[in-house]
Amino acid sequence: MSQTVVSLAEELAQELGVDRVLTAAEDLAVYAYDGTAALRQNPACVVFPLTTAEVAFCVQTARRHRAPIVTRGSGTGLSGGSVPMEGALVVCLNRMDRIIELDPRNLTIEVEAGCITQTIDETAGKHGLFYPPDPGSRKISTIGGNVAENSGGLRGLKYGVTRDYVMGLEAVLASGEVVWLGNKCVKDVAGYNLRDLFVGSEGTLGIVTRVLLKLVPLPQARKTMLASYTTLEAAGETVSNIIAAKIIPCTLEFLDQQTIRCVEDFAHVGLPTEAAAVLIMETDGHPHVVAEEAAAMAAIASACGAISVRTAADDAEANKLLSARRAAFSALARVRPTTILEDVTVPRSELAGMVAFIAASAAKHGLQIGTFGHMGDGNLHPTYLTDERNADEMHRVELSLAEIVDRTLAVGGTITGEHGVGLAKKPYLKQQLGDNSYQLLKLVKGALDPDGLLNPGKIFE
Amino acid sequence: MSQTVVSLAEELAQELGVDRVLTAAEDLAVYAYDGTAALRQNPACVVFPLTTAEVAFCVQTARRHRAPIVTRGSGTGLSGGSVPMEGALVVCLNRMDRIIELDPRNLTIEVEAGCITQTIDETAGKHGLFYPPDPGSRKISTIGGNVAENSGGLRGLKYGVTRDYVMGLEAVLASGEVVWLGNKCVKDVAGYNLRDLFVGSEGTLGIVTRVLLKLVPLPQARKTMLASYTTLEAAGETVSNIIAAKIIPCTLEFLDQQTIRCVEDFAHVGLPTEAAAVLIMETDGHPHVVAEEAAAMAAIASACGAISVRTAADDAEANKLLSARRAAFSALARVRPTTILEDVTVPRSELAGMVAFIAASAAKHGLQIGTFGHMGDGNLHPTYLTDERNADEMHRVELSLAEIVDRTLAVGGTITGEHGVGLAKKPYLKQQLGDNSYQLLKLVKGALDPDGLLNPGKIFE
Repeated sequence: MSQTVVSLAEELAQELGVDRVLTAAEDLAVYAYDGTAALRQNPACVVFPLTTAEVAFCVQTARRHRAPIVTRGSGTGLSGGSVPMEGALVVCLNRMDRIIELDPRNLTIEVEAGCITQTIDETAGKHGLFYPPDPGSRKISTIGGNVAENSGGLRGLKYGVTRDYVMGLEAVLASGEVVWLGNKCVKDVAGYNLRDLFVGSEGTLGIVTRVLLKLVPLPQARKTMLASYTTLEAAGETVSNIIAAKIIPCTLEFLDQQTIRCVEDFAHVGLPTEAAAVLIMETDGHPHVVAEEAAAMAAIASACGAISVRTAADDAEANKLLSARRAAFSALARVRPTTILEDVTVPRSELAGMVAFIAASAAKHGLQIGTFGHMGDGNLHPTYLTDERNADEMHRVELSLAEIVDRTLAVGGTITGEHGVGLAKKPYLKQQLGDNSYQLLKLVKGALDPDGLLNPGKIFE
Repeated sequence: MSQTVVSLAEELAQELGVDRVLTAAEDLAVYAYDGTAALRQNPACVVFPLTTAEVAFCVQTARRHRAPIVTRGSGTGLSGGSVPMEGALVVCLNRMDRIIELDPRNLTIEVEAGCITQTIDETAGKHGLFYPPDPGSRKISTIGGNVAENSGGLRGLKYGVTRDYVMGLEAVLASGEVVWLGNKCVKDVAGYNLRDLFVGSEGTLGIVTRVLLKLVPLPQARKTMLASYTTLEAAGETVSNIIAAKIIPCTLEFLDQQTIRCVEDFAHVGLPTEAAAVLIMETDGHPHVVAEEAAAMAAIASACGAISVRTAADDAEANKLLSARRAAFSALARVRPTTILEDVTVPRSELAGMVAFIAASAAKHGLQIGTFGHMGDGNLHPTYLTDERNADEMHRVELSLAEIVDRTLAVGGTITGEHGVGLAKKPYLKQQLGDNSYQLLKLVKGALDPDGLLNPGKIFE
């Protein structure tokens, strides 16, 4: 360990106490990776601040020691956003997990960045309120991570993503200064909207320490259905026709046969393992509307050739179906040593073509791809089940990935719908944005973090 | 006219033709002001580009001549955002008004910046779709202006504001380069969200030339109601109790007695001129939900002491009520020579107190204030009916304004909910944001427009 690193850790320990600063190799190893395959780098030091002032102190200290800073919550990210770089200080916010205020008159909740996503929704639920964004990892992910990545989830179609619920946030800047952006007003045009710029900035513009979130009334009813298909196309057509019928359900999730089989093997929820694809469809809201929309969606699914449409009898069965979907990534990850999860998103009109393209790419390159995703959002997660030790297979994965990216961009899509750019997608960002927009992003980064202190090497090449 | 200015206009005329460049004083006078009281400055030149490439040419030419650039649509702004500065080139986009594409499969519409807001909604309506943001000036305002100001409207409570519908935009930067930010994907986290930064940037970061907007299914039914009150407090309490009952109607508009009388005098729609206040309440969506919510809202209004709750018999009557509300500003503007329209917004829980504070401030300073606004959003428009030639009265207006701003900020509100900072609110921006956030905004401006070419002197002191 270099002299500089020791004194950074010592300085932090002096202020925060030795129990809140990790430097031992075996401790650091735990903070070397996130949920992204094949990325791993030990940091120099991990620190656990308890207050915003302590976070600011960490930033100022790291700045003096010229140590890059990586902010981390639970490390469930899927683009390598919280993977450290050499010599980095990991600022881990998971001990800053307080719920500061639930304001039922203004339908808001203010929490610290380390608060667990599901805890926020459960707390809201006690007041008849609802925090809709529900990333797959919501049981352990922190809201700070959700804000950094602008996380989506299963309810995005109707309810939107994390950004749609962030009314305000507190952030520590690269300078060590603290700012509050936003407030409890439902409308505010006083100055540039930097709040929404910080949402999704992946820890590269500041460290988000507190978040003020919008809550919505808990829907009175919901209906959850499972439609099974003999072809991928029929599932895609169902989604297109539901949207074309001007129905915006809360959930339209897709699983292909590979995924269905892995999930069933893992979770035993009674999925039809012979089906080529299933859709998990959920509508929520007023009981009348739910009944009507569920009936319409079932009719559309049948008309598109669904071999069965099953409605969950009760909440328990509905939750089982949704949990099965949430288990897709974990279930697929058990099959082969390396799991590479993609996050391409296309305009909804391009969905059916994209699903077919992915299947064809797998066949062409002799690869195993399980595809699932938020089909109503056009957001697909083709998942390569592979082995990073097999150089030939990895080369074919790269060829397939490149052609999926090319196709995605050709039809007006994006390389990442909800996982972020981080390390995993940065080779493709310029291709998507074009030179002018890419340079504009770098201008903003340069203005807010001129010394490249915050999460360097992420997003940009 | 200086040598430089002549050659700027000449250079533009050479490229665009003389009929698209104005330099005569009587022509320039029309572009010297917008909808904001007491602000007026002739530009050096007005130009009407027809394409993005021409806008880029205008920016590059102005840059060479070091002429500041003001972008303008229909000039309906209420914070002085499109009021020129000395020597300015006004880039007027109202001839770039094409609808480029309505995409019913993806529920989007792409338009040029000069397209009229109401035209967009009418075009959507022909496809059973709906563009919700409806600023008071929607009949003549351009979408480019709406995007620049992040305009709100009467339906903000349920449907949000302009930013919530902007999926993508094209902008000409201060450098003259063109960028596209965003796309047709409903989810996209590839890089910083600069699209939402440009929305509401008031022409200071770039010139928005095209906009890709999200549309939503047209609601099947609506009910519009008028509740009358003998006290302001009872109207405020009704709004609070509706939200507390977890009802999110599309419209909850407030008019005080002064406004009711002016509107009635102007528009003759049968408003109760003896009432201390009225609420115009509208719910839309599924017929069942609309019926239930309307009944619940009427019951809440009565329980809060409404002396009458009238339901519009049909669309014609509903539209008449909403038009009456839209006429509030014009109606008030007829009373005295000068009309100063405020735009303070507070957390909804602070509404009743704020309405009372405004009334007390008017009494204390011997001023005439008509207050109306989007009460469901906490967004009030206290409107001073005054005379700029009366120095003593104007001094009292300033005292009253300052105490309303202080009170607004003390309760966590904002100096502007939907009109923007422009020239009118810039003395108060730092007070609201605090030094750190204010400097952060200036950093962003400095990075994107280092020479201060775009709308200089706006937003910041």
